[in-house]
Amino acid sequence: MDYPLAVQKLIDELRRLPGIGPKSAQRIAFHLLRGSREEAERLGASISRLLDGIRLCVTCNAITDREVCGHCGDASRSDRLICVVEEPHEVLAVERTRDFKGRYHVLHGALSPLQGIGPDELKAQGLIERVRNGGVDEVILATSPTVEGEATAAWLARLLKPLGVRVTRIAMGVPVGSDLEWADEITISKALEGRREY
Amino acid sequence: MDYPLAVQKLIDELRRLPGIGPKSAQRIAFHLLRGSREEAERLGASISRLLDGIRLCVTCNAITDREVCGHCGDASRSDRLICVVEEPHEVLAVERTRDFKGRYHVLHGALSPLQGIGPDELKAQGLIERVRNGGVDEVILATSPTVEGEATAAWLARLLKPLGVRVTRIAMGVPVGSDLEWADEITISKALEGRREY
Repeated sequence: MDYPLAVQKLIDELRRLPGIGPKSAQRIAFHLLRGSREEAERLGASISRLLDGIRLCVTCNAITDREVCGHCGDASRSDRLICVVEEPHEVLAVERTRDFKGRYHVLHGALSPLQGIGPDELKAQGLIERVRNGGVDEVILATSPTVEGEATAAWLARLLKPLGVRVTRIAMGVPVGSDLEWADEITISKALEGRREY
Repeated sequence: MDYPLAVQKLIDELRRLPGIGPKSAQRIAFHLLRGSREEAERLGASISRLLDGIRLCVTCNAITDREVCGHCGDASRSDRLICVVEEPHEVLAVERTRDFKGRYHVLHGALSPLQGIGPDELKAQGLIERVRNGGVDEVILATSPTVEGEATAAWLARLLKPLGVRVTRIAMGVPVGSDLEWADEITISKALEGRREY
């Protein structure tokens, strides 16, 4: 005996979302079933219409509903510094620090031969052009500290350095507020390697 | 600087779902943004139309798309045994055991004075009538082993016993496959109390 078809279909579709397993999918479906029809219709419409009017910033590839995103259009930010991230939501992760007042560049991925993602799949050409056009002093490579992120950073550094720009990589180390006891050996090794004068 | 309005609106709506925090909501929204428009539209439509044609079984209150649910309409099941659960999805949890061949009754909640859920908010009247109409030998109270579930079971037992039906409660104890070391003291106490001859 199964759920009604509409319920089973929704559970199957929810399970394809990141971080949603069979139990969460079921919980969400039954939460919606208990709620009002208006509530389900509102959420459904938000998802259906999500991509209407959404596009990538012509300069940095961030997700925006205008031609140029808010960060690229903000005159108070410096053009001299570009922070390169893999994914659009990582722009907000950097923004939350309130420490960065430069521009961004979103690659929309990282090099991953296993997943068939090579240089041509990444949106890096625009970055090269931005640097080549001049006015950029430093490119901060803020790709993730993973095998893919490291490979992408190394590849970008090789492309960018000959253009005469300073290329830096974010620091890797023990996360603030965490206990050394729980850090893995590679992180600790990176933290030792990146040690600074006290 | 924020996300485009459509993205922020979806993240806010996703956060209202059970088990979805701010990070998960963001991950899901960006997953959909990376996907095709068709994919987002399909999921959106499944949610919008979820409640079309969905109703509660006239006998047991299970969620169904017919007048009488599959379990109530199944002639191979016994009318003599009714398993009472709090929520519709718990019917499937019991079904997965493949051990139960009786009927169900879904209360759609449990007594909870703190949340303002009293006897009138539960769909228990139909259960009383089913027992009163005769042909039922035993009612298994499979409400959760929580304060609310226990209160609900005690209340139902008080209503049902005078009707001459056998009323039983599911066993509480240490979960199969778990380590005694990790069980809390109340569970162990229940497991001791419910011990059986070996």
